[in-house]
Amino acid sequence: MTAEQLFGEIIRKKSFLCVGLDPEMAKLPRHLLHEEFPVFEFNRRIIDATHDLVVAFKPNVAFYECLGTAGWRQLELTVDHIRRNYPGIMVIADAKRADIGNTSRKYAETFYEHLNCDAVTVAPYMGSDSVLPFLDYAGKWVILLALTSNKGAEDFQMLASRKNEHVFESVLKKSLNWGNSNNMMYVIGATKAANLVKVREIVPDHFLLIPGVGAQGGDLAEVAGYGLNSRCGLIVNSSRAIIYADSSDRFAAAAREKAREVQQQMGEVLGLRFGV
Amino acid sequence: MTAEQLFGEIIRKKSFLCVGLDPEMAKLPRHLLHEEFPVFEFNRRIIDATHDLVVAFKPNVAFYECLGTAGWRQLELTVDHIRRNYPGIMVIADAKRADIGNTSRKYAETFYEHLNCDAVTVAPYMGSDSVLPFLDYAGKWVILLALTSNKGAEDFQMLASRKNEHVFESVLKKSLNWGNSNNMMYVIGATKAANLVKVREIVPDHFLLIPGVGAQGGDLAEVAGYGLNSRCGLIVNSSRAIIYADSSDRFAAAAREKAREVQQQMGEVLGLRFGV
Repeated sequence: MTAEQLFGEIIRKKSFLCVGLDPEMAKLPRHLLHEEFPVFEFNRRIIDATHDLVVAFKPNVAFYECLGTAGWRQLELTVDHIRRNYPGIMVIADAKRADIGNTSRKYAETFYEHLNCDAVTVAPYMGSDSVLPFLDYAGKWVILLALTSNKGAEDFQMLASRKNEHVFESVLKKSLNWGNSNNMMYVIGATKAANLVKVREIVPDHFLLIPGVGAQGGDLAEVAGYGLNSRCGLIVNSSRAIIYADSSDRFAAAAREKAREVQQQMGEVLGLRFGV
Repeated sequence: MTAEQLFGEIIRKKSFLCVGLDPEMAKLPRHLLHEEFPVFEFNRRIIDATHDLVVAFKPNVAFYECLGTAGWRQLELTVDHIRRNYPGIMVIADAKRADIGNTSRKYAETFYEHLNCDAVTVAPYMGSDSVLPFLDYAGKWVILLALTSNKGAEDFQMLASRKNEHVFESVLKKSLNWGNSNNMMYVIGATKAANLVKVREIVPDHFLLIPGVGAQGGDLAEVAGYGLNSRCGLIVNSSRAIIYADSSDRFAAAAREKAREVQQQMGEVLGLRFGV
């Protein structure tokens, strides 16, 4: 998927919403627990109920791995379901992987080839040769962690260097040499919207994946105000606030209502900016 | 496993060797390919041939994930085989995970509970709350990436901060508040043995996991000279140089010979230091 195609989807759906598929067994509606693949059945209903309101789905791999082989099977089924039924939707493996070169290559194989995802989140700590193998796939995306939305982001990402820039700024600058705005995005925590100004100075053209709108806090208008660029340039993720909107047998309808609320706010923002 | 128990194993076996179990289908001896679980069969033979020479086995999860559910199954079988037959040996999941708190908790569940590993490698970029959930397990270990052995380590780990310390030094210092020398170790790349001096100033008592002796280069005597502490404090990993020593049907015997060579060097080092 190209940046242009993604922008096309955003305009068509009047949405830059990504729904995070982070299913926890303990939070699944009870009537699904007798299914052979309860996690997949949960995801499938969420996907079917929200697909026209979103441009991306983002399963976080941790929630599948912790179920062992059954978890991986249900991750495969989930990605497959999106691929077959909603081919225009971006599938982001939220995996936060990276390792030495030959090992990162295996991770890239896992998420791009085996699982057929469009994008994978990558951790920058190990530097260039840990990220580059993920960029060897035409049409696929690296979403590099830059400034995350959690409290611990202060610990190292916000360290000031001798050049008087934060480590997350160094990550943005260095990585400009590795990829471009057609194969790299950045994770930027919405809880630090003021930092979006700094981010946009360094990467004006790139898409940003913004977590933390919803359960983690964060304000859509502020994010849009500082983050929008000429191709929208934003994908805003919401996980728990949408998928756990209701725990009864009408959870999928409730998820749709929550997604619809966010999508409508996004529609207004996009209308003002792009006249759609 | 406690640090004291690990030191006991090191003295008993006259070894601080860890063998990395990073099986690539393309490199497996051909006669194993007709097995139902070729990766597990490969690992099993390597493990059985080297168990008395090593104190740890370290499967890198990437090499299993890329095979999908079949890969996860074989990772489970591998850990199980070590657990059942060689209970004194530490099992390190080389996974380089970390995410926001509730997600890191899922990864901790995966590797400590589901897979029953002793230790997991953790990436520090997301800071305290991404690491702390891994420390909630008594008797388990976090092995935090500090200074890795790859070229890309220069990009961010070696950035100099305003406090005139490198980012990897900040990682060491901050993380001293999160764990202690009985539940945290650090990954320190052997290819930068001179940096071991700096590392030992900050974390004199911790165990260090040193990759990069073998296929990635690195010198055991230098590492020992700068890195040994009163409980040895070193685990040195070798993967490819041992497991791919030979690709014929005598690969396991060849792996043993290579492991034996390294173990004997380690025995000399330990003899000089601890009189064993």
